Amino acid sequence: MTSVFPASSADVVSDAGLFAALADLDEPQRVALLQRRMDGKTKPVGSLGQIESLAIRIGLIQGRDDPVFQSPQLLIFAGDHGLASRGVSAYPSDITWQMVANYLDGGAAASVLARQHGLALTVVDVGVQHDFAPCAGLVRRKIAPGTADSSRGTAMTWLQCRQALEVGRDVVGALPGNAVLLGEMGIGNSSAAALLLARLLGADLGCCVGAGTGLDEAGVARKRQVLAEVLSLHQDARTPLQALCAFGGFEVAALVGAMLQAAAERRTIVIDGLIVTAALLVAHALDPRVQQRCVFSHRSGEPGHDLMLRHLHAQPLLDLGMRLGEGSGAALAWPLIVSAARLLREMASFDSAGLSAGFDAELAKSQGGRTS
Amino acid sequence: MTSVFPASSADVVSDAGLFAALADLDEPQRVALLQRRMDGKTKPVGSLGQIESLAIRIGLIQGRDDPVFQSPQLLIFAGDHGLASRGVSAYPSDITWQMVANYLDGGAAASVLARQHGLALTVVDVGVQHDFAPCAGLVRRKIAPGTADSSRGTAMTWLQCRQALEVGRDVVGALPGNAVLLGEMGIGNSSAAALLLARLLGADLGCCVGAGTGLDEAGVARKRQVLAEVLSLHQDARTPLQALCAFGGFEVAALVGAMLQAAAERRTIVIDGLIVTAALLVAHALDPRVQQRCVFSHRSGEPGHDLMLRHLHAQPLLDLGMRLGEGSGAALAWPLIVSAARLLREMASFDSAGLSAGFDAELAKSQGGRTS
Repeated sequence: MTSVFPASSADVVSDAGLFAALADLDEPQRVALLQRRMDGKTKPVGSLGQIESLAIRIGLIQGRDDPVFQSPQLLIFAGDHGLASRGVSAYPSDITWQMVANYLDGGAAASVLARQHGLALTVVDVGVQHDFAPCAGLVRRKIAPGTADSSRGTAMTWLQCRQALEVGRDVVGALPGNAVLLGEMGIGNSSAAALLLARLLGADLGCCVGAGTGLDEAGVARKRQVLAEVLSLHQDARTPLQALCAFGGFEVAALVGAMLQAAAERRTIVIDGLIVTAALLVAHALDPRVQQRCVFSHRSGEPGHDLMLRHLHAQPLLDLGMRLGEGSGAALAWPLIVSAARLLREMASFDSAGLSAGFDAELAKSQGGRTS
Repeated sequence: MTSVFPASSADVVSDAGLFAALADLDEPQRVALLQRRMDGKTKPVGSLGQIESLAIRIGLIQGRDDPVFQSPQLLIFAGDHGLASRGVSAYPSDITWQMVANYLDGGAAASVLARQHGLALTVVDVGVQHDFAPCAGLVRRKIAPGTADSSRGTAMTWLQCRQALEVGRDVVGALPGNAVLLGEMGIGNSSAAALLLARLLGADLGCCVGAGTGLDEAGVARKRQVLAEVLSLHQDARTPLQALCAFGGFEVAALVGAMLQAAAERRTIVIDGLIVTAALLVAHALDPRVQQRCVFSHRSGEPGHDLMLRHLHAQPLLDLGMRLGEGSGAALAWPLIVSAARLLREMASFDSAGLSAGFDAELAKSQGGRTS
């Protein structure tokens, strides 16, 4: 296969005028200011652990030392995969549209968590093999009814990939608020994620494909064999966007576009599990500063996810063995992220609380103790 | 020192008529019914990971398969420690009452988290070295202005210990709702917790005392030396209640009483960090079934806490290196606990959602996969 891309994927995207380069948010002075503010709160220095660095991250993203979230959005991109016909999933493609209906009907895990936390839930059909009637909460931007079978050619053409990037960009751009929680649905997309992981990080395919998809032992062996075949077919798909076109899917590309747009708008981006993090690998390769806007909600039960998190030096908030997708990890972790912002904004400082200079002095003396 | 206790602490408490024996909630039939209900939800079996076992735990506690929380209560018990005069903390005892004032003023971490989650916050003065004026949210049940110095004698008499158990029992009994989140404040109480851990689990004192209190290296060495001295002085305090009297404090004993009362009323008990879990060690020794009503919110940054959790075979929800106390870990984890209950109650089942038999059949075939 002859590549249709120039050597650098980043060039393709910027040449296409899709996304401008991201500003650097991590100025040392800003970081130091936020750290001082956190250290001045009425608690021993460092005693809120990882919540403190999370609060500082949110302060950096929002560019303020009293960060506050407005209109958080849970966005689920859905699409089908031609490769599913090769039996790489325990489920038939029909499950994709049925679960989309379930999100909209309010019965899925993501629906329940969105209700609990006041998250606006939007489902985007970017390539589901089903015709949806118009419906509140559903954005219909189907590029095609599923990607092509990546074991026979590229899953997406560059034109389709670009369209999917634009869908992600447009959907985020049209939504209010300053935080997006990203999720996905698409039977077969854990295969796409495994292939992206293997290609972009040079990881051994065996470490990227697990039993986590619900396949039995024989099923996993078959999936590995099919994915090895696909990987070998697309040997020349080396850049992130080439790999994205080769392996798919529409929802993964839309996630990349959504991330880059949200990052440009300085929204806090809450990363979910295996598939969303695979999209982040692509976005990160295009512009590493996208990660300055990201919060990692959880470590999924899929073994490949841990590899991705290590590559990104990312410290997730939760580690509960979840492997559901649909943004459920992001939605579950959301209140922790709100807590971090509220603690930074609302906790009294030694000055404001009029706590005794004794505590203050003792605290300065101490090197990160607890109060009790 | 001559023990004032009979051989079994449990006998003391039941003889004193304080608490009745707890019913067994974990009937295999109930467990199986809840497991089936969770497995019938529109998701691959097991894909919500630890949230699923948490949901089943809550269902067992409430005795219903559609659990719901009402009027959750954040309870902070506060007391001072005579041992603090030996320099075992980086902070002076005055910090205890100042932080109590901070909780009530709304400026502490616990206050912020309680506001965020709609938790009613009650602070109980069970032995603070300060006279508080009456104030909304403060329960004044002071037994004494701090425990006695445990390096010179027992921290509490049995009468005082019993009074403190009663305070915990009474305070919980007077509150509405079906969930209590437990926290504490008391300069010096990480020493009491370390001593209880060392005595009740026979753990090496060196593993129970860390730098986590904010002491520098010399301070930790001094603390260890003092605690070794205290441990040796109270060699004959072998039963849980003997150890509790010997090492203190009032807030720890009140926590034990609160747990046993909440357990008797089948409230969900949310366990915080080192000190609250030390109280649970005592309660658990008195009646192991108390743990059937407990949810473990987090693993604290204090090394002794991990030892306690291992002893109890407890799997906490969060592991964020927090070490603040005041119920902050419990309050931070609270929405995850609510999520578990809501997912069990509100998620559609295959039947209710009318999802295709295909999904159902495929799901039955699969052994715990993800949907995408």
